[in-house]
Amino acid sequence: MAKPGITGMKHPVAIALIQMRCDPRPQQNLQVAETRVTAAARRGARIVCLPELFRTQYFCQSEEFSAFDLAEPIPGPTTRALARFARRLRIVIIGSIFERRAAGLYHNTVVVLDADGKLVGRYRKMHIPDDPLYYEKFYFTPGDLGFQSFSTRFANVGTMVCWDQWYPEAARLTALRGAEILFIPTAIGWPRSERGWHRSRKNKYDEKQYDAWLTIQRAHAIANGVFVAAVNRVGTENAIEFWGGSFVCDPFGKIIAQAGHDREDVLLAQCDLRQIDDTRRNWPFLRDRRIDAYGAITERWHDV
Amino acid sequence: MAKPGITGMKHPVAIALIQMRCDPRPQQNLQVAETRVTAAARRGARIVCLPELFRTQYFCQSEEFSAFDLAEPIPGPTTRALARFARRLRIVIIGSIFERRAAGLYHNTVVVLDADGKLVGRYRKMHIPDDPLYYEKFYFTPGDLGFQSFSTRFANVGTMVCWDQWYPEAARLTALRGAEILFIPTAIGWPRSERGWHRSRKNKYDEKQYDAWLTIQRAHAIANGVFVAAVNRVGTENAIEFWGGSFVCDPFGKIIAQAGHDREDVLLAQCDLRQIDDTRRNWPFLRDRRIDAYGAITERWHDV
Repeated sequence: MAKPGITGMKHPVAIALIQMRCDPRPQQNLQVAETRVTAAARRGARIVCLPELFRTQYFCQSEEFSAFDLAEPIPGPTTRALARFARRLRIVIIGSIFERRAAGLYHNTVVVLDADGKLVGRYRKMHIPDDPLYYEKFYFTPGDLGFQSFSTRFANVGTMVCWDQWYPEAARLTALRGAEILFIPTAIGWPRSERGWHRSRKNKYDEKQYDAWLTIQRAHAIANGVFVAAVNRVGTENAIEFWGGSFVCDPFGKIIAQAGHDREDVLLAQCDLRQIDDTRRNWPFLRDRRIDAYGAITERWHDV
Repeated sequence: MAKPGITGMKHPVAIALIQMRCDPRPQQNLQVAETRVTAAARRGARIVCLPELFRTQYFCQSEEFSAFDLAEPIPGPTTRALARFARRLRIVIIGSIFERRAAGLYHNTVVVLDADGKLVGRYRKMHIPDDPLYYEKFYFTPGDLGFQSFSTRFANVGTMVCWDQWYPEAARLTALRGAEILFIPTAIGWPRSERGWHRSRKNKYDEKQYDAWLTIQRAHAIANGVFVAAVNRVGTENAIEFWGGSFVCDPFGKIIAQAGHDREDVLLAQCDLRQIDDTRRNWPFLRDRRIDAYGAITERWHDV
């Protein structure tokens, strides 16, 4: 245990990730979320994060104009419900919402609700994928709020959403704004139909993809000296078998909690925020960044 | 096997990493390097990389004015020797040199020698550490050549040096310049004297640190869709037990060759450069980068 410094001590904060199946009925998903969030709070969690677009099944597997009906404004019904849970349980809740911002303008958005139910802010997914079964560019306008950290009662919370998780720039910029824990709601899985490149014949799961997913997010923790908490849905919806595997790692990338691939979970982890400064003192990467030499990161490619 | 596209095919290129002990006698290290590089070439390697500052023991464990005597100009004796090996063996050699650029101006530099012995270019270590036993800021002026990729006969070669390996910005910028394989000469180990934070009591090696080292470099491969090849020295020198563990991973972070912690090795790996495009098509991270939103990466911190 470190001795208290002149700025005082920060105690460990318990967080929880709600790894859940998503039902075709939005109301059912909200009820499940409430039950699980309540259970997490009873087990001591002070910050609870739900998976990406938890109110619906993953509709981006195809391009359907009618799916836009699933969107809602912020604040709107889901924000208000989560705010009620947060206020009642006195916890911070991070929820993912299909946001209708204006006619024809939709985002994949995260809301952060403080322990008094107040909406601290929102983050709109910045990196939008478009791949077979993940036709997100059809639905989601790229975020325009940049990378953010939100000051809440229990920690400074950074948010990224799914595809963002593959971008070191997103993690860096979020950490530079003061985030102590990066929460990453996600919806990622194995295509059911593919067996070659995506899935090996020997194993039920192609761990190569899951391992890459784990690795790059653990690397965000290491590069930035922050906790990373990624929460995925689980279960099969149409052509995707969502791989669960939600996890929390410490500021040096060590996994401190991890869920399975096959079942729902309320995954708790204790995050001792003092580890952030400890780790950064021992591995002072932030100190030596060459900010004079990173300008070209805003370029697409260096054409020869 | 992919069918040849309209731009033709690139065949797999064999690379080798020379994981070696370093002797107090610089001449001895050069002889060992020649023997091992020759052995690698005979086994088919077309690009061979030596560890950081392979000509000397790791003098940065203390601050000694006399240690500057170990430096040399580029081109100089080591560059010329490596060029001879490269020309004779018809291979690309990547070597690390303590560079004397001018009186009182020294760098930790990598030279890339093409298969005809020509000096393709140099890279000067951009991120300079300063930690107990790694007093590099005393010796090395931060690099001023930026992040680079070198076009050689067998591949586009990117270079980073040791501490650089913890910076996603370095990997990204090098990859954006066209690097297909990131070569990372390094000198990293466990302090012999520390047992608590750095080394567990149960295990001979604290794999947490090695694992973080492996993880962040594998993440560079994943984020950028490039091969990563990191080569470390091995053996104990004064207070550091260099942890070896050199490795090569493919563009999705899968380790395809890995050396042990305790012994020297000539580590060979086959890099099928077609995997780069294959991987990037399946995981098109470069396509969706938000170059409009990364500007603050050139800032030190976001003060609230």
